[in-house]
Amino acid sequence: MKRENLTMLVDFYEMTMGNGYFMQGLEDKIAYFDMFFRKIPENGGVALAAGLEQFVDYIKDLKFTEDDLDFLRKKGFNEGFLDYLRNFKFKCDVWAIPEGTPIFPGEPVMTVRGPVIQAQFIETMALLIFNHQSLIATKSSRIVRAAQGRPVMEFGSRRAHGASAAIMGARAAYIGGCAGTACANCEPDYGIPALGTMAHSWVQLFDTEYEAFYKYAQIYPDNCVLLVDTYDTIKSGVPNAIRVFDELKPTKKGIRIDSGDITYLTKKVRKMLDDAGHPDCTITISNSLDEYLIKDILLQGACIDSFGVGERLITSRAEPVFGGVYKLCATEDEKGNVIPKIKISNNVEKVTNPGYKKVYRLYDKDSGYAFGDYLCLADEPEPVEEDLKAVNTTAAQHYKNLYNYVAKPLQQQIFKGGELVYQLPTLQQIRAHREDCLAHTWEECLRFENPHIYNVYLSTKLWNLRNQMLGNVPKE
Amino acid sequence: MKRENLTMLVDFYEMTMGNGYFMQGLEDKIAYFDMFFRKIPENGGVALAAGLEQFVDYIKDLKFTEDDLDFLRKKGFNEGFLDYLRNFKFKCDVWAIPEGTPIFPGEPVMTVRGPVIQAQFIETMALLIFNHQSLIATKSSRIVRAAQGRPVMEFGSRRAHGASAAIMGARAAYIGGCAGTACANCEPDYGIPALGTMAHSWVQLFDTEYEAFYKYAQIYPDNCVLLVDTYDTIKSGVPNAIRVFDELKPTKKGIRIDSGDITYLTKKVRKMLDDAGHPDCTITISNSLDEYLIKDILLQGACIDSFGVGERLITSRAEPVFGGVYKLCATEDEKGNVIPKIKISNNVEKVTNPGYKKVYRLYDKDSGYAFGDYLCLADEPEPVEEDLKAVNTTAAQHYKNLYNYVAKPLQQQIFKGGELVYQLPTLQQIRAHREDCLAHTWEECLRFENPHIYNVYLSTKLWNLRNQMLGNVPKE
Repeated sequence: MKRENLTMLVDFYEMTMGNGYFMQGLEDKIAYFDMFFRKIPENGGVALAAGLEQFVDYIKDLKFTEDDLDFLRKKGFNEGFLDYLRNFKFKCDVWAIPEGTPIFPGEPVMTVRGPVIQAQFIETMALLIFNHQSLIATKSSRIVRAAQGRPVMEFGSRRAHGASAAIMGARAAYIGGCAGTACANCEPDYGIPALGTMAHSWVQLFDTEYEAFYKYAQIYPDNCVLLVDTYDTIKSGVPNAIRVFDELKPTKKGIRIDSGDITYLTKKVRKMLDDAGHPDCTITISNSLDEYLIKDILLQGACIDSFGVGERLITSRAEPVFGGVYKLCATEDEKGNVIPKIKISNNVEKVTNPGYKKVYRLYDKDSGYAFGDYLCLADEPEPVEEDLKAVNTTAAQHYKNLYNYVAKPLQQQIFKGGELVYQLPTLQQIRAHREDCLAHTWEECLRFENPHIYNVYLSTKLWNLRNQMLGNVPKE
Repeated sequence: MKRENLTMLVDFYEMTMGNGYFMQGLEDKIAYFDMFFRKIPENGGVALAAGLEQFVDYIKDLKFTEDDLDFLRKKGFNEGFLDYLRNFKFKCDVWAIPEGTPIFPGEPVMTVRGPVIQAQFIETMALLIFNHQSLIATKSSRIVRAAQGRPVMEFGSRRAHGASAAIMGARAAYIGGCAGTACANCEPDYGIPALGTMAHSWVQLFDTEYEAFYKYAQIYPDNCVLLVDTYDTIKSGVPNAIRVFDELKPTKKGIRIDSGDITYLTKKVRKMLDDAGHPDCTITISNSLDEYLIKDILLQGACIDSFGVGERLITSRAEPVFGGVYKLCATEDEKGNVIPKIKISNNVEKVTNPGYKKVYRLYDKDSGYAFGDYLCLADEPEPVEEDLKAVNTTAAQHYKNLYNYVAKPLQQQIFKGGELVYQLPTLQQIRAHREDCLAHTWEECLRFENPHIYNVYLSTKLWNLRNQMLGNVPKE
């Protein structure tokens, strides 16, 4: 890529609108935008938020160069607008749900309040970062759950959609629960353990497989993982590995299998290794795996110590789109009154929740498990009442009385008047947070097939506002 | 991302092997690698090569920093190897099929010859770049074909897998035939036309839809494209657009619809616009489109002038993995003799074609259409004989006599001893090349359902070598 600064990675319509707002004297008009998504990938029960740190980096780096402005001038934009961009200083308030948190359809993962030009402008990158990393973190979490405690390594760089997909994908996979990555720079740059041993080419380069293994074991006696499927796993690869283990006695040893019938091979290979006196030799599997295949081969009794997962994780192959959107939900009039806004559209599911809102997670007082999220208008009191009437939007849209709960706000303030007020957690903290959150999530929401649909409630006031606005659309 | 230089975006095993080769005194051992793929996405008949320019940029920028070396030292690598990396100078020969060329399974899209450490090291990025851009160029070409001459704009940045997926995806989509992109920086950086008008938020921000349209038309009388589905396309959006067109008479006008039943709406809207005296008002459609939907709605008579295609193009949603691989195919002994290498594996389709090879495209002398590609060993003569015996690997693996053809080599030399010897074409030249190539491709290969399988032939000598090696695998 020709740029490191991503200010101009923006849908051109943000520019067209920005110039338009400026020319209509609306540059100080205050607008509120919600970022939310409509559907969990693969009909899953839980998605994970990720990408906030890179969004913060993006905001901190926002800057238009003279070259950028020259380009925009050629596209016909107003000189006053270009001056505005030249002196661009981010002034928005931003609230967001921290990385690693389970998130659900319809709730504001991020809310942005500020001058409409600015709050609009950041749409493209906010969505790009959030959609990508949340997609991969969600997929990673599914695959890691299927592996039932066995480490899962992210191996997908070569099938990633470009350089940042590889690196940020590895980061998101780590948030979701992967133990590490094959992508080398992720260790020095992000503290994600990077590892990798040999390709088939190492084995092919030498005259014999035995020689290739022997020479590798000579150099790496402390981490001797041999790829055994270049010629024939059972007849050649594993016997040669055992011979080298016997001769050179590496302190840590393992084999990796990258093809064939995994269940059959690993059962057979496990026995061969055990019989040869190498019960401590680990078996790593790769080869177009995902959560469904992993679940299936483990059910069949495959003998596996760890997994390497590539293309189906780094592209989230079964559903490579995370459908986050960024929608205007309110403006302010001259006196600072919040004016809710709604979008209707010909597709019912595209109707938005109007107004400046807050979102809370409700935990059952007895079990500690989260049983639903609660959206209300920001000027409503925190839900502390013991008997709260709300509308469940996920099942039939009916009233429900909520009680015996503890409510915790889900969003944190990230920027205040453009200043960063949020202490970004480390990746380790994000991972611990994800683990803690999932420990308080009903298992029924975590299964892959027909998971329990997590409840998202609207406050009565928000529900009434929405209905009232639906019946009162601008006539002209 | 924290780095612009991508030297360390590499699967860690390339490092482990590099260090291993160095410590075994093999740093000058010459190896040959083929990059190829096994399957065209979505059971398509043709894939398009893309990404070579970024691969060249990557090679030119290869450089290890002291920070990189410090990290590798901590990972336990040999000081001599770190010195080798510190003084890294690319020395390989690289041949590749130019961007925009149709490519087919099993043929070497790129061949790399050089010191094994180097030729191995570049695997990760060669695959990442090629897999990503070829995936999107191929998908773009399908979507553009379905649009039957109507311009298709790439609108997917917000659903791209990270920043480089957005930018390089837009580049690849342009190679595949898209007319432009929404991604602003692609115009100044790559010369790809960038455009965009308004989001629903523009319409929502004003008190009425009419006011929103009017104010937009005031500012953009030369390119007045109005988004008409914020409230109700038929009852509100289009009537308001017509009113504004009548009042302000923009010189260029259009509407965009982003939801609802596209066929129904566009037929109805076209009539409304025509009846109101605006036959020159264009209709642009977006909303989770792909080649199948476009083909279908056009068959139903939808009235559409241009398409905006987002998530299903930028992620190639139906198949987001392009399965390019990079395999050792030969080494050289001390005397410079080429020693072919083969990989067998437990999966039949993973068996490789051994040896240092060349690939030719065969054109029928009468029609000018390409009817097959021909792989042979590099020391075989160019296929000029009028009656060439070859093995068709794509149908039944049988001998066939080829005649009445013109053969053209598919690969160009890109690097010679590490020096760039290839004049990179412009994006416009790549687009023209793609157009020319597709004009000489049988239509039967270009259809979406059950396309004709393009012939890939092996020379008799290569076929015999492969069979001989399959029966003569290293015993140890």
